[in-house]
Amino acid sequence: MKTLDLNCDMGESFGAWRMGDDAAVLEHVSSVNLACGFHAGDPTTIRTTMAAALARGVAVGAHPSLPDLPGFGRREMSIQPQEAYDLMLYQIGAVAAFARASGSGLHHVKPHGALYNMAAKNPELAAAIARAVRDFDSSLILYGLSGSELIRAGRQAGIAVASEVFSDRTYQSDGSLAPRGLPNSVIHDLGEAVAQVGRMVTEGRVRCIDGKDIAIEADTLCIHGDAPQAPAFARAIRAELERLGVAVRAPG
Amino acid sequence: MKTLDLNCDMGESFGAWRMGDDAAVLEHVSSVNLACGFHAGDPTTIRTTMAAALARGVAVGAHPSLPDLPGFGRREMSIQPQEAYDLMLYQIGAVAAFARASGSGLHHVKPHGALYNMAAKNPELAAAIARAVRDFDSSLILYGLSGSELIRAGRQAGIAVASEVFSDRTYQSDGSLAPRGLPNSVIHDLGEAVAQVGRMVTEGRVRCIDGKDIAIEADTLCIHGDAPQAPAFARAIRAELERLGVAVRAPG
Amino acid sequence: MKTLDLNCDMGESFGAWRMGDDAAVLEHVSSVNLACGFHAGDPTTIRTTMAAALARGVAVGAHPSLPDLPGFGRREMSIQPQEAYDLMLYQIGAVAAFARASGSGLHHVKPHGALYNMAAKNPELAAAIARAVRDFDSSLILYGLSGSELIRAGRQAGIAVASEVFSDRTYQSDGSLAPRGLPNSVIHDLGEAVAQVGRMVTEGRVRCIDGKDIAIEADTLCIHGDAPQAPAFARAIRAELERLGVAVRAPG
Amino acid sequence: MKTLDLNCDMGESFGAWRMGDDAAVLEHVSSVNLACGFHAGDPTTIRTTMAAALARGVAVGAHPSLPDLPGFGRREMSIQPQEAYDLMLYQIGAVAAFARASGSGLHHVKPHGALYNMAAKNPELAAAIARAVRDFDSSLILYGLSGSELIRAGRQAGIAVASEVFSDRTYQSDGSLAPRGLPNSVIHDLGEAVAQVGRMVTEGRVRCIDGKDIAIEADTLCIHGDAPQAPAFARAIRAELERLGVAVRAPG
Repeated sequence: MKTLDLNCDMGESFGAWRMGDDAAVLEHVSSVNLACGFHAGDPTTIRTTMAAALARGVAVGAHPSLPDLPGFGRREMSIQPQEAYDLMLYQIGAVAAFARASGSGLHHVKPHGALYNMAAKNPELAAAIARAVRDFDSSLILYGLSGSELIRAGRQAGIAVASEVFSDRTYQSDGSLAPRGLPNSVIHDLGEAVAQVGRMVTEGRVRCIDGKDIAIEADTLCIHGDAPQAPAFARAIRAELERLGVAVRAPG
Repeated sequence: MKTLDLNCDMGESFGAWRMGDDAAVLEHVSSVNLACGFHAGDPTTIRTTMAAALARGVAVGAHPSLPDLPGFGRREMSIQPQEAYDLMLYQIGAVAAFARASGSGLHHVKPHGALYNMAAKNPELAAAIARAVRDFDSSLILYGLSGSELIRAGRQAGIAVASEVFSDRTYQSDGSLAPRGLPNSVIHDLGEAVAQVGRMVTEGRVRCIDGKDIAIEADTLCIHGDAPQAPAFARAIRAELERLGVAVRAPG
Repeated sequence: MKTLDLNCDMGESFGAWRMGDDAAVLEHVSSVNLACGFHAGDPTTIRTTMAAALARGVAVGAHPSLPDLPGFGRREMSIQPQEAYDLMLYQIGAVAAFARASGSGLHHVKPHGALYNMAAKNPELAAAIARAVRDFDSSLILYGLSGSELIRAGRQAGIAVASEVFSDRTYQSDGSLAPRGLPNSVIHDLGEAVAQVGRMVTEGRVRCIDGKDIAIEADTLCIHGDAPQAPAFARAIRAELERLGVAVRAPG
Repeated sequence: MKTLDLNCDMGESFGAWRMGDDAAVLEHVSSVNLACGFHAGDPTTIRTTMAAALARGVAVGAHPSLPDLPGFGRREMSIQPQEAYDLMLYQIGAVAAFARASGSGLHHVKPHGALYNMAAKNPELAAAIARAVRDFDSSLILYGLSGSELIRAGRQAGIAVASEVFSDRTYQSDGSLAPRGLPNSVIHDLGEAVAQVGRMVTEGRVRCIDGKDIAIEADTLCIHGDAPQAPAFARAIRAELERLGVAVRAPG
């Protein structure tokens, strides 16, 4: 039976500030990526969000970031691969401690924001990130952009990977996402988005911005929890997957 | 054979700023407490300091703090026990990740600065801290001020504890340290300091500021690594302990 | 003609996180206190919030805090008076730069959260804060709790002060606020709250928790912008003040 | 009479961490750039460093940075021009507050580290930075790399500029600094460095890495205060300038 994971970033509140409706989103996903305190999240938020996720049986991963609270980890920053390794290890360990104290464990790691994007293109950075995940726990699954350097680096490091796809973004013929500036880079029509996901899972193909089809691996789909339409969207995707006989389930 | 641990705070550099001569101090101690990033330390410093300590066979612990980089964790801050629990778990996990990636493990946890002092007096805070240590790893040893609420809380939580004493501070008859403001609260004479340590280990007693003797438990002695005379001091203590037939060794 | 200022904390978003509905509150107040980046606020938020306030002709002040983003400046922290002076000067200057770049100037300074509470009781801290305000600009108005050490310190320093009162809190016979833990410390009934404000402004008196009346100075009233009922509340207060012939106007 | 300013970064300690020997360097320079708290510096360090500089009659400027304490402001970060404007205004205002409280004023602004380098090449960023300086105080002098976009932007904004040169770095034929990776990019010989400064000031020319001479403007020379040889170096430069009849003096 074919499967697809639905993952969502979570625990992105910070101190007195709230972000997202984590409780609502939890009902629709099979895995969550917890902010680790470097772009969002704080020790108390990590604990409470993890407890909510574990209570629902959702797979919990770490969502490490560049150290950039005021920029929410979205600004590229020139760091060396060794720094990336150190940042990853620190953040994975911090979040894993809460899983351990709950008698549980981490399921996966997905880099956040600018770090995710940099790791998709930069092989040295990707390798450092993959090594950090492996050195902490070689049974963790590394989530990365489908077809990216990060996925390659994870395989190279000998750890399991999950290829992430997007329902509401258009792809280019080299497998990368069409930059947000381009016309038609974002898919606004829900039906179209749902159809793209269906094809990616069942046929392993996606229609590109230039009209050609390319092959794509789809292990996990990113749900944007901060979008107001996230619950409706997640429900539509799940219905389509059910129709297609695809099980929604965390990888591994 | 009687034993005494010599411990020292370490890895308190931050980014471009250096603090202490960790390499020199490492030669004289049996355990080190690594800053976790909240009062000092950063992911890269944690990694390199831990590697140096493990290479010398020194026991490595975490040294978690209140979140206060500009105040070096020395300013008391009103936090709830649950916040203390969360802060501890986060920091212990972050440092433990580097031990794990090195194929090693943490040996102990010693709260830093204002958190250490608050935990010595406040039973609720002490209990939360002890629980965090136990929930992360019940084989960790909790270091705390000899005779303090933190030592009591550790025993209550069912984990091993190490009672910390000071060679250069005078005690009061209730077992607490004489406040730094008082005359004679600090022992400046090296010979006197060395003699105080010797008595604490062999007789389990210390002469108080009021001239009376009290009983004291001494499992570990704090070496202030940032003091210029630290190496000379550590050497003198070690010589005296050798003379008395006391082994310098990490607890547990 | 009697006057009362309605002030509200504002610009307490931070990076990607939103807080409060500043645009809605701006319609109801005569002065605003802008977060300075230490408990909330960031350079961009300061600029945009100040522009909105200046566009509505509302008096703009700085709202400096202890350095505590994760605790939103609400946790007491043991700092020396000189540190408080330095923290104040830094934050007032940072916010004043945006006023200056807009061809305007700051109107007042109101310490935030734990710093406000500590300054109400601690004369040395209060004196340091008043000196910082005066040394930056002796025409600034210092807002502080009515009857507090901070108001005394401002007068002592020779600067103008504004005595702040609360409509929804009960007072004790020494003029301090009844601690939130006590029964009846918070006034939930809107009519009662409005009546308390009316009496404070017109009679200069307030009924205490023990049933006795005390004298109170009321120059400015704190509107809690983050409460959902803030707009309704502000409207009711304004209606009552109008009925009583009291003008809503920033001091000075 | 020809003049040259000798400037040095200063006040780069942070909390408990010390950096540089500011007192020693102060004897050799005509202007200093004070860290503003974003890459280094804190309110107390700003106050004490400014007092020392003003006591020696040295011109005091602000040294604003990207928000990056752990990276000391040396890591490029993708920010928008508007963000740069806001960051600049905040930091200039914070430091200017201490000058104002001392009855003095700021003399200049020099961006730090990665922000300095980005502003040298990126015209939009440079324009935003120049606008921030002008909007705060149009009599401030903007220090930037000689021949860079930042110098152009300052002139465009109608404010005074000071073209900064380096004695120990080799130039390329387009006027930019040879990247540190290249052979011969750094001048290690003191005599050679001193001679380069002499030529830049008296002839307005510098020998490039390819052996050709180019024209260069030299208003201010950067002294690296954190280098152990800084005092010896500053003394040699001053002796050479004296020999050449060039006065060491802050611009403006």
